[in-house]
Amino acid sequence: MARTPVASTKVERVERDGREQASDLVAVEEPLQIIIEHGAAHARTEAPLAMTMRTPGHDTDLVTGFLYAEGVLASADDLVGVRHCLRSETPDNVVRAVLGEHVTVPSRLLQRTLTVTSACGVCGARTVEALSKTGCRSVPIEANAFRPEAIRVALASLEKSQAWFRHTGGTHGAALFDQSGALLLHREDVGRHNALDKLVGAWLRTSTSASNRAFVVVSSRASFELVQKTVRAGFPMMVAIGAASSLAVETARRFDLTLVGFARESRFNVYSSGARIALETHETELVPVEVG
Amino acid sequence: MARTPVASTKVERVERDGREQASDLVAVEEPLQIIIEHGAAHARTEAPLAMTMRTPGHDTDLVTGFLYAEGVLASADDLVGVRHCLRSETPDNVVRAVLGEHVTVPSRLLQRTLTVTSACGVCGARTVEALSKTGCRSVPIEANAFRPEAIRVALASLEKSQAWFRHTGGTHGAALFDQSGALLLHREDVGRHNALDKLVGAWLRTSTSASNRAFVVVSSRASFELVQKTVRAGFPMMVAIGAASSLAVETARRFDLTLVGFARESRFNVYSSGARIALETHETELVPVEVG
Repeated sequence: MARTPVASTKVERVERDGREQASDLVAVEEPLQIIIEHGAAHARTEAPLAMTMRTPGHDTDLVTGFLYAEGVLASADDLVGVRHCLRSETPDNVVRAVLGEHVTVPSRLLQRTLTVTSACGVCGARTVEALSKTGCRSVPIEANAFRPEAIRVALASLEKSQAWFRHTGGTHGAALFDQSGALLLHREDVGRHNALDKLVGAWLRTSTSASNRAFVVVSSRASFELVQKTVRAGFPMMVAIGAASSLAVETARRFDLTLVGFARESRFNVYSSGARIALETHETELVPVEVG
Repeated sequence: MARTPVASTKVERVERDGREQASDLVAVEEPLQIIIEHGAAHARTEAPLAMTMRTPGHDTDLVTGFLYAEGVLASADDLVGVRHCLRSETPDNVVRAVLGEHVTVPSRLLQRTLTVTSACGVCGARTVEALSKTGCRSVPIEANAFRPEAIRVALASLEKSQAWFRHTGGTHGAALFDQSGALLLHREDVGRHNALDKLVGAWLRTSTSASNRAFVVVSSRASFELVQKTVRAGFPMMVAIGAASSLAVETARRFDLTLVGFARESRFNVYSSGARIALETHETELVPVEVG
């Protein structure tokens, strides 16, 4: 199994007038098991928390972002370290996230397959509301915080930043931009949720600035899960190249996230909190008038 | 929350020369919690098994396909029924899958967050091998079983079958075709894994023919998970519009699945078991020859 983000493989190319052997680059997809070590010094415990299929690279960012999205971490300081698990048979694919002694792991994460509540499950209408338990808060709306031009600049920049995608056509990108549309950070992964977890994790680990002046662009569709992660990280706007789902829109509205979908350089759709997007200022133009 | 697969929402369209209010159709994304009821008659037990974000519609197909992929069901007969859970607060989003008394639920599904093995996790190099535990078996390779023309016909047909996608741009499609490329079944969902689970579930519930004469086409990329589900269902070929990941290719090779990626009407890539794809037979043509 490959430990790099991109691997070469043999392929047969079939066209109308024949077929030929060739080699092709594919995005690497490998399992990552996340084990957490937690508890007070005298009673440290370990528990497997999650398994995700991810592209190797930036594993520490991924784990940090994932634990933050799940409400385990309040900041990167809650995480003592992320270590590849050398006593595993596959040390590249098992990591141990060592939590600070003061960190309490939400019981829902440790017990999620154990309980059947008398209410027969907690999902459904309460899904969006349940996000406040993971630390999701509305970001105050600052009118005209972002110009459409910044979104256009960001879109062009996202494409250039996706090196793994350029080689393989098989990864999703997530990137962070400042108010002018300048690239701050970017990450890629076969999983769109992983790409965003890596981005948020990298930002938590390295940034010194506030999140409310930056916006996220994802190369994929906007799902509930991506909106949740963006809100949790405190970014005021998410721009998706693809469509937005109903629950993505509902969640964005509930938490005052500006959600942009079908983003192209020439046009885009705004599903929520459009007040953050400034009106364009145009040069005065001669407007043709039909007469007679 | 919407119970239909497609919902209408307000949107602001921003273009270079202005912005306007409009309405837009989005794919509905809603949580579905799957609870299983299992065990012998004198000791029936229930347990929450999984939660997935899905597009409402064909929930019984989805649950059947999911339980089959996980190795819980050996056939649709193992499932007594799938019932929306009326004592839930959100009956549309909670289903109870009632298993036959003879069905044994694999313990890994009931205990997956409970155990830490001394080997520090079982993922990694053994991921692909572990699939045999869920009932994945190689399909014998029949040379020239599928003509490239059938793939081309199927691709054109897939596009036409994706009604939810046509309205929203926000769903993935999975469809099943016979050897001539004629459409047998199709399903859609915001999640590509759900679309395939729905397809396999529908096929298990309705089909009377063998799986080894049909092939699957997915509108998305080919991930490990999609290959796993296709192999489990016994289909000999999966065609993906998008890229294939490294683990998708490895898994396809391990189980002799013919994996096609970047499928277009004019060309496609074959990553494994290309012997199933017949050579084209062309009309005799005059071939230009350079002379002198």
